Amino acid sequence: MEKEVIESRFRNLQLHICNELEKIESLSKFQEDAWNRAEGGGGYTRTIVNGNILEKGGVAFSAVYGDVSDAMRKQLGLEGESFFATGVSIVLHPKHPRHPIIHMNVRYFELNTGKYWFGGGIDLTPHYVSKEAAILFHQELKQKCGAFHPDFYAKFKPWADEYFSLPHRNETRGIGGIFFDHQDESCGLSKENLFQFCVELGELFPILYKQQIDFKPVSEPTAREKQWQLTRRGRYVEFNLLHDRGTKFGIYSGGRTESILMSMPPLAEWTYNLQLEKNSEEQQTLNYLSKFHEWLK
Amino acid sequence: MEKEVIESRFRNLQLHICNELEKIESLSKFQEDAWNRAEGGGGYTRTIVNGNILEKGGVAFSAVYGDVSDAMRKQLGLEGESFFATGVSIVLHPKHPRHPIIHMNVRYFELNTGKYWFGGGIDLTPHYVSKEAAILFHQELKQKCGAFHPDFYAKFKPWADEYFSLPHRNETRGIGGIFFDHQDESCGLSKENLFQFCVELGELFPILYKQQIDFKPVSEPTAREKQWQLTRRGRYVEFNLLHDRGTKFGIYSGGRTESILMSMPPLAEWTYNLQLEKNSEEQQTLNYLSKFHEWLK
Repeated sequence: MEKEVIESRFRNLQLHICNELEKIESLSKFQEDAWNRAEGGGGYTRTIVNGNILEKGGVAFSAVYGDVSDAMRKQLGLEGESFFATGVSIVLHPKHPRHPIIHMNVRYFELNTGKYWFGGGIDLTPHYVSKEAAILFHQELKQKCGAFHPDFYAKFKPWADEYFSLPHRNETRGIGGIFFDHQDESCGLSKENLFQFCVELGELFPILYKQQIDFKPVSEPTAREKQWQLTRRGRYVEFNLLHDRGTKFGIYSGGRTESILMSMPPLAEWTYNLQLEKNSEEQQTLNYLSKFHEWLK
Repeated sequence: MEKEVIESRFRNLQLHICNELEKIESLSKFQEDAWNRAEGGGGYTRTIVNGNILEKGGVAFSAVYGDVSDAMRKQLGLEGESFFATGVSIVLHPKHPRHPIIHMNVRYFELNTGKYWFGGGIDLTPHYVSKEAAILFHQELKQKCGAFHPDFYAKFKPWADEYFSLPHRNETRGIGGIFFDHQDESCGLSKENLFQFCVELGELFPILYKQQIDFKPVSEPTAREKQWQLTRRGRYVEFNLLHDRGTKFGIYSGGRTESILMSMPPLAEWTYNLQLEKNSEEQQTLNYLSKFHEWLK
């Protein structure tokens, strides 16, 4: 399985996802920026703004290569002299507070030593948690995982809980999903099958998001809903800038800032020491944002 | 010079600064939260919101002590078994885009080994840089530094440029100011005089901010000014969460999140790949946000 094949299918995956999302979104279209990396490779960053569904979102593809830098050696513990990395990365911030923020990433990494691995994940960050929608989301992920490996969901679900967490808030980012890294044939799947898993996760992504958008009919948001959305987006910013290893590595290693930070929400709010009403919907959402919640009994 | 004296004068400094700021601000007052740290000590966090001048601000005092944790050993390179730390920390986000964001911090640290040091600084982050106001700000800081040590401004001004920078944006946070850390008697000042320098910097703070607010009469902000303010606040968030060592250390070492993140703006915006008009005031501001700009010739 050549890296050029993976690169080319990831690029197609990006285009496919954008096409599918444009079927959900009727007001706006993705715009594409091409960029080059001085040290080798580049990418296509596709962004959308001011849609009727999507207020701000990005679907990024990149394929970069070059020397393993000191920063990569130190922060990623990489061996070898040169690397190749390609992937698709998505964050969508919906306009409506009753629609969830969603993130997906699939990526492939190889070193000149012959070592390779896949990583990725999908996780959902509702501003208001709907238990039924959360269960549906996890059911779909469990089913896709199960089609490839009997242990994937059981391994990758708690991994997401651990990864997408804000220890300083004692909260998870959202209702989780799956997350995995450093997967090679030692997981029991051939390289081809692992790659197929990543591609199918990507293809599942727009289906999952449409399910969430369709989950219940949405009326005009209230001022209270909109304010809570801004607060939850503030938490999203905190996670991405304080904790997300991908963001930090990209920033510290001189990646393209605009592509890395396309994950930022359009607008976010911080209120000092916000207190929620007991039993309010907002407080109920917070109660769900704890690690290792089992959505599927 | 006993640590209890420093602690008590820093607490008074906090109250003095709040009183002075309330003379500038006519619509809102500071509210105080007292908090305790399980491992020892605590603080008083004073915050203000929805003023006519200050949209959101915090003036925090803390005095904490306890065992030197592994995180402190590793991240701060501390020796010894126990520590004591006290300080005052301020961030003010003004309502009007033509008023600047301002930050101040003075702090004292001592270890049971007998080692101690002071740190601190004041820096200014205008949404729109006014050259004259920036010069005035630096003149005042240079004068205060000069009253204590002939080298302080020359040393502490570039230190601020270095510290308050966003390498991923190739920008400084604002027009700088002064920053210093790990100052003890080896700088040529006695412990008493160093402490006095910190106190006088704190006392200078409300005077400096009033100068900036008074600098020119302000009319109703335009939509464009307000939008640019939100963008600049986004950069402020990026600095604080990605780069600020104080924020990161506080978060990672289990500090009080609400007190640490009182520095967050009320509202912040991110626009993908924002392009500014050439020669616009916004672009002119960006042109000023580069390291080692000499405001005082």
